[in-house]
Amino acid sequence: MFWTFAGPQAFSAGKVRLAGETGHHLARVRRVRPGEEGVVVCDGLEHHVTVERAEGGVVLAQVKQTNAVGTEPSGRLILLQAVLPNPDFDAVLEAGTALGVAAFWPVQADRSVARPPAGRLRRWQAIVQSAAEQSHRGAIPQVRAPLRLGDALGELADSTIVALDPSGDLPLREMQPSFPLAMAVGPEGGWTEGELATLRQSGALVATLGPRILRARLAPIAAAAIVIRQ
Amino acid sequence: MFWTFAGPQAFSAGKVRLAGETGHHLARVRRVRPGEEGVVVCDGLEHHVTVERAEGGVVLAQVKQTNAVGTEPSGRLILLQAVLPNPDFDAVLEAGTALGVAAFWPVQADRSVARPPAGRLRRWQAIVQSAAEQSHRGAIPQVRAPLRLGDALGELADSTIVALDPSGDLPLREMQPSFPLAMAVGPEGGWTEGELATLRQSGALVATLGPRILRARLAPIAAAAIVIRQ
Repeated sequence: MFWTFAGPQAFSAGKVRLAGETGHHLARVRRVRPGEEGVVVCDGLEHHVTVERAEGGVVLAQVKQTNAVGTEPSGRLILLQAVLPNPDFDAVLEAGTALGVAAFWPVQADRSVARPPAGRLRRWQAIVQSAAEQSHRGAIPQVRAPLRLGDALGELADSTIVALDPSGDLPLREMQPSFPLAMAVGPEGGWTEGELATLRQSGALVATLGPRILRARLAPIAAAAIVIRQ
Repeated sequence: MFWTFAGPQAFSAGKVRLAGETGHHLARVRRVRPGEEGVVVCDGLEHHVTVERAEGGVVLAQVKQTNAVGTEPSGRLILLQAVLPNPDFDAVLEAGTALGVAAFWPVQADRSVARPPAGRLRRWQAIVQSAAEQSHRGAIPQVRAPLRLGDALGELADSTIVALDPSGDLPLREMQPSFPLAMAVGPEGGWTEGELATLRQSGALVATLGPRILRARLAPIAAAAIVIRQ
């Protein structure tokens, strides 16, 4: 049983044709065979399919049943994640996708040691797509190129903003924030005072994850597990 | 600032003497210096200390203040974790310790591919101790050698038992289980029907983590983040 994503142009007359990277992966790496069942997600719909042919890096499958996606969280979580050194950032993308994060906005924070090159975005998108397939997401999360914190906050007028910091007013688990929710998680060493001031000026609530010290790569994973419902 | 653990025999006349592996690590690896502050946890107490001497793998420090540990969760979580291949099991130990797991009971599950040798326990204990220091725990979690599921359950008469499985009756986040809580998390591929029957016969509630598929190494981390309060 496989799970993948396709655009509407892949569908025609009750069949789906998977070519390109997805077709290559299914036909040559996963080696799907005629008769194998799978799900192809497109624009909020799960198409349950049976493979008819898989050859030359192209998979042709028949759509047996279609229903609305049932695996997406009820609220949209945007993770404003400070850039972390590899492999930590990759691990956050992979786990966050499985937990249900809707969008990853990497923030080049004051204490971010890593400075990812522009080409890193493609790698991040590949990680997120693969994790979305493995975890049976109903949509591939958005990943952006690294942003400045102020620029990211400027785009979040419609969202609740919660920043994680040991100075926080309330434990995250008692906060019951409303969605869409943007959660800002700092690098190893945390947000600077200047960044926290910027966050508070944008209306951010500041929450703690409790009295224990979590590594930078663990904090967003624990926080996503706590706030995502369904 | 360092954080470590010592037995009561290390304390005498308002001072603490750290020798052995802890002294070696602090003096030779962390290279603490006279005047540096730290915390030495012993039997539920945090001793806030200032280093007086650090030489030859021994650290002598003066106790400035003592208070009850403030970083332990309010409820005791025992993680009955199916053995996973490395490095996944190590990652669960490290993250679980930071999140507040009180005890790790590895279970040699039907679908556990890995068969850790007896010597692995020492390595696990070192991982847990190091993670307890980094996360400022008030106690080093217990780690046992791998057990059979039935044997583990036989020792849990006083605990709420929750097993994670996609067949679960209720999402874990809606469950509000009482403590002490034993949470049974399966290997890649999950618990077998026979294991689930054994769990249910022991009174286990069966909970899901939601509709998405989590990797075996992520499920216990997400579950611990959800159930541990404070």
